[in-house]
Amino acid sequence: MPKKSFPLSKVYRLLEPGPVVLVTTARKGRANIMAMSWHTMLEFEPPLVGCVISNRNYSFDILNASKECVINIPTVALAKKVVDCGNSSGRKVDKFKKFSLTPMAASYVQAPLIDECYANLECKVADTKMVNKYNFFVLEVVKAWIDPMQKHPQTIHHQGRGVFAVDGETIRLPSKMK
Amino acid sequence: MPKKSFPLSKVYRLLEPGPVVLVTTARKGRANIMAMSWHTMLEFEPPLVGCVISNRNYSFDILNASKECVINIPTVALAKKVVDCGNSSGRKVDKFKKFSLTPMAASYVQAPLIDECYANLECKVADTKMVNKYNFFVLEVVKAWIDPMQKHPQTIHHQGRGVFAVDGETIRLPSKMK
Repeated sequence: MPKKSFPLSKVYRLLEPGPVVLVTTARKGRANIMAMSWHTMLEFEPPLVGCVISNRNYSFDILNASKECVINIPTVALAKKVVDCGNSSGRKVDKFKKFSLTPMAASYVQAPLIDECYANLECKVADTKMVNKYNFFVLEVVKAWIDPMQKHPQTIHHQGRGVFAVDGETIRLPSKMK
Repeated sequence: MPKKSFPLSKVYRLLEPGPVVLVTTARKGRANIMAMSWHTMLEFEPPLVGCVISNRNYSFDILNASKECVINIPTVALAKKVVDCGNSSGRKVDKFKKFSLTPMAASYVQAPLIDECYANLECKVADTKMVNKYNFFVLEVVKAWIDPMQKHPQTIHHQGRGVFAVDGETIRLPSKMK
């Protein structure tokens, strides 16, 4: 799907609501995908994201070596594939092929965008000081993409063991908050 | 409302979906509340939570001094009060009084639970190494409470500027994920 550039100053609006995301990494021309819910914004601009990628995951080694990844944000339409990605390891399968997901070239990183996701954030590792103790990477988002056709993307929020809350109604309250 | 104890091993199920939370702190008998969306699980058990509390917030100084807080999880019924808490400072107002929220004594920390929230996590600061650079506190959840009457609490997810996605449908997919 054709994506348009999304301002870095607004990236927090995509991640602050806590959606499940798919993280893509690549090494030597081979790409991988992992499902992730343990992430938080750390700074508005340039957008910094903190996330836990366990050293038991195949993606940990690739991220540690390549220092690049893409955070792809799926909607509920991809829920089954998100679980499939979470339940398998890139050590054994090519998840793009096995789950019929489409890799698209990114602009600033080697890792591919997942075309089916409504937003894609190209990231470079900015700080590894917390990796040893917490498997916690600080990422800087260097480029963001969004599908302009999806006005109300319904993201999903993992509650454990394959149970997800799907975004429902949107409410708007007068606020001075960013 | 009467709360029951909630197992620490399952706390990730409450925070992993990324709800807006209300953080309570206390110093010298005076309690404060702040709204927060920038948090992530860091470890399952004992449950560790990482969160950004800006040094521009009144709560920053209290947390830094007291090393204790409570993470209170509101449902959509409290959305207006969440925004009210986010749009005011404890330097100027007593938010419990002004917004008619009920403080309840916690078991292990000085900060109060907010009675109206469906879950409450008593926390101690476990690591301050990332506070200087990122305003990022590592908290250990030492006690968790939940309202057993709320079987399907609808949490809210901030998308910026007072817009929130409310939990809608819940889906359950076969999964090996925790």
